[in-house]
Amino acid sequence: MKISYLGIPGSNSFSAARRYFGENHEFLGRDSFVALFKDIVQEKSSFAIIPVENSLAGTVVQNYDLLNRFDVSVIGEYYLKFENHLLAYPTKETKSTQERIGTITHVYSHPQPLMQCALFFEQHPQIHQEPFSDTARAAAYVQEEKNPRYGAIANTEAANIYGLEIVQRDIADNAEHNYTRFFALAKEQKDNPQANKCSLLFTLPHIPGSLEHVLHIFSSYGYNLTKIESRPIHGKPFEYVFSVDITWKPIQAESVELMLVDLDKKTQTYKVLGFYTAGEV
Amino acid sequence: MKISYLGIPGSNSFSAARRYFGENHEFLGRDSFVALFKDIVQEKSSFAIIPVENSLAGTVVQNYDLLNRFDVSVIGEYYLKFENHLLAYPTKETKSTQERIGTITHVYSHPQPLMQCALFFEQHPQIHQEPFSDTARAAAYVQEEKNPRYGAIANTEAANIYGLEIVQRDIADNAEHNYTRFFALAKEQKDNPQANKCSLLFTLPHIPGSLEHVLHIFSSYGYNLTKIESRPIHGKPFEYVFSVDITWKPIQAESVELMLVDLDKKTQTYKVLGFYTAGEV
Repeated sequence: MKISYLGIPGSNSFSAARRYFGENHEFLGRDSFVALFKDIVQEKSSFAIIPVENSLAGTVVQNYDLLNRFDVSVIGEYYLKFENHLLAYPTKETKSTQERIGTITHVYSHPQPLMQCALFFEQHPQIHQEPFSDTARAAAYVQEEKNPRYGAIANTEAANIYGLEIVQRDIADNAEHNYTRFFALAKEQKDNPQANKCSLLFTLPHIPGSLEHVLHIFSSYGYNLTKIESRPIHGKPFEYVFSVDITWKPIQAESVELMLVDLDKKTQTYKVLGFYTAGEV
Repeated sequence: MKISYLGIPGSNSFSAARRYFGENHEFLGRDSFVALFKDIVQEKSSFAIIPVENSLAGTVVQNYDLLNRFDVSVIGEYYLKFENHLLAYPTKETKSTQERIGTITHVYSHPQPLMQCALFFEQHPQIHQEPFSDTARAAAYVQEEKNPRYGAIANTEAANIYGLEIVQRDIADNAEHNYTRFFALAKEQKDNPQANKCSLLFTLPHIPGSLEHVLHIFSSYGYNLTKIESRPIHGKPFEYVFSVDITWKPIQAESVELMLVDLDKKTQTYKVLGFYTAGEV
């Protein structure tokens, strides 16, 4: 199978793709989110993986815009824990972790992980922080330079792919809290009897209480709301698109079609992004 | 007055602070969002300005977490349009815009604006994209290097402060759609008879339909919901904190206290972030 992802081997999207789909596939790295959607629509790939929210940075707004625009289906979700490991070009000398860190003069990474590791850099003021376009490219650069004084902040896959040493694991200030949620995309919805979650986008008529009425549909069928988010619609002041995730128990699955009929009556427009099996955080 | 903001002169937060509060104040640049909240709590500054959402990247989750944690008040909001201008170290030669761009070999900026200007870089393949920690520091670097072949992507204030030439205005792919919403913070809520907007955080009891009941409070008082967003609570699976903005007409202002009494009954916890005058997008 061909699976498209953002970046180069060792990127977070690459890790998510391999963990969700397994490793024995052809993984196609792309330069932009829109390229991933085009790969699906034009059938260059069977699947793609896109980040949709992140415990620190919030919703990836751009991908929700693309989900609205392109005719693709969400067939699964995956929660990837961030790994902000300190990697470095390996040396043959044996040193303690602290001694090894003391020899590092430059650390390359994306500005976001650099900011998340603020306490580490306070404790090691000799290290210059070097912003890079992404974590995997930072790791690739450290490999190319072959300088044991250079480090990168990136994940385990990046360490393996670029032959770097993991000097210290998870150096972020709040390592345990960080994850990214990914959607797996395909051209068509797959028949999935285990599906227990659905992502929806909808817009509402200008009637007081219209959002309450929609939420009442979900609660009347006994569904749980696990996410709700409004976003302004560009160029239409005071109009919003709502993004909602709902989950259900197997016994409730039969009512999904009925629920959608009700939803159609209470919304201006609605789009089912996909039915899928809820991932584990 | 002392006003705290993130970054150095020329940052987007700096521009927002000067446009919201006016220019004749002492502006204190800080390195982290938490430092801004501490300035307010410890009365080192009278006010601070923080980004809370952005039309491309979505909600600034970290600042909502800090608003929940610190005892500060939102006293205003400001929408700042992004400016992604191409700046460069000035030359004395007179050239057309296209000729001038043709002489530029390196452009420095934060990875986000670099990504937003993808079409520009496709059209000018001779230019190397150089990621930097933020846009203002990229402009400061171009000034220091005094090399007319170096450019930065940053705003008008950065051009003025660092003596750079605006080679081309708004080179982003979708220039018209980009804005950041800022909150103005103070230690205490100011008495503001013109206040027509309120930001709230709340958590809900585990009862089906509990969100509907809260939305019904707002609609029963005739208030408009202009934002709603759920976020998972770390370490408490299936529990969420809701962030809501509501607006009202002057005639409805008297009912705000009554509405809060109702809200207290229907939520597990709630926090009023502040009452303020709605800003213009």
